[in-house]
Amino acid sequence: MRYLEDFTPGQIIELGPRAVSESEIIAFARQFDPQDFHLDAAAAKKSDFGGLVASGWHTVAMCMRLIADGYLMDAASLGSPGIDQLRWVKPVRPGDALRLSVRVGAVTPSQSKPDRGVIRAEFTLRNQRDETVLTMKGVQMFHRRPNDPMSP
Amino acid sequence: MRYLEDFTPGQIIELGPRAVSESEIIAFARQFDPQDFHLDAAAAKKSDFGGLVASGWHTVAMCMRLIADGYLMDAASLGSPGIDQLRWVKPVRPGDALRLSVRVGAVTPSQSKPDRGVIRAEFTLRNQRDETVLTMKGVQMFHRRPNDPMSP
Repeated sequence: MRYLEDFTPGQIIELGPRAVSESEIIAFARQFDPQDFHLDAAAAKKSDFGGLVASGWHTVAMCMRLIADGYLMDAASLGSPGIDQLRWVKPVRPGDALRLSVRVGAVTPSQSKPDRGVIRAEFTLRNQRDETVLTMKGVQMFHRRPNDPMSP
Repeated sequence: MRYLEDFTPGQIIELGPRAVSESEIIAFARQFDPQDFHLDAAAAKKSDFGGLVASGWHTVAMCMRLIADGYLMDAASLGSPGIDQLRWVKPVRPGDALRLSVRVGAVTPSQSKPDRGVIRAEFTLRNQRDETVLTMKGVQMFHRRPNDPMSP
């Protein structure tokens, strides 16, 4: 199990790749963001995007899955209060392969709740051409490692 | 069709309600955010959340759907460059009914591209008890209304 103490400022965690298919772009769009350029390849071709592109919220949900599989599922995670400066820098298209780079910033134990703390992190998502497609800054809350009287 | 000119600073757009079911919380979690407290009601009960809660990315995707249905699907939308200060203020739980309030801020024609412009907007998502569950600030790009020589 990974606790707050297992994150260190400056640490970089590389995740992925994650392939993006046309069918999943369309499935997400149908459910949450049914704009033409996310849903309909023919209409998307005539749009400013020149072809089907993933909903920005789909892109960030794929980041979340990379984070979950990468380090959150085996961590004492308490969720996140929020995200800052989320930027969709370039479109994500069918056939892309996405890699996420997580740069850990400050690691701060809570003053009021001694069993937990937060890490700050900067996230950069890149495609197979190493172009940045998404950036964001986030805060994640974790439990601190429990005191174990048997540990050295 | 709704264009940049159809948004005015101070305008408030009220959207929803949108019901949230346990099955869709679990379906989203399975795909994008399979942490226990989003996926497994029994495990969630033992977590700090005290029960199943929607992934924050699911909550924001439901906002997107309210926005799409509310005013984006019939608008000359060009997407969004990003979001600021996304905050998950309170958990969203099965049975919640979500309403989104969109407050339009500055409406700014592009200096470099005369056919388009951006609006700034503040989004507040509330549940059926009128508790704020999510806030964010965003920018949305729209085409300007085409010059129509036949219009008065």
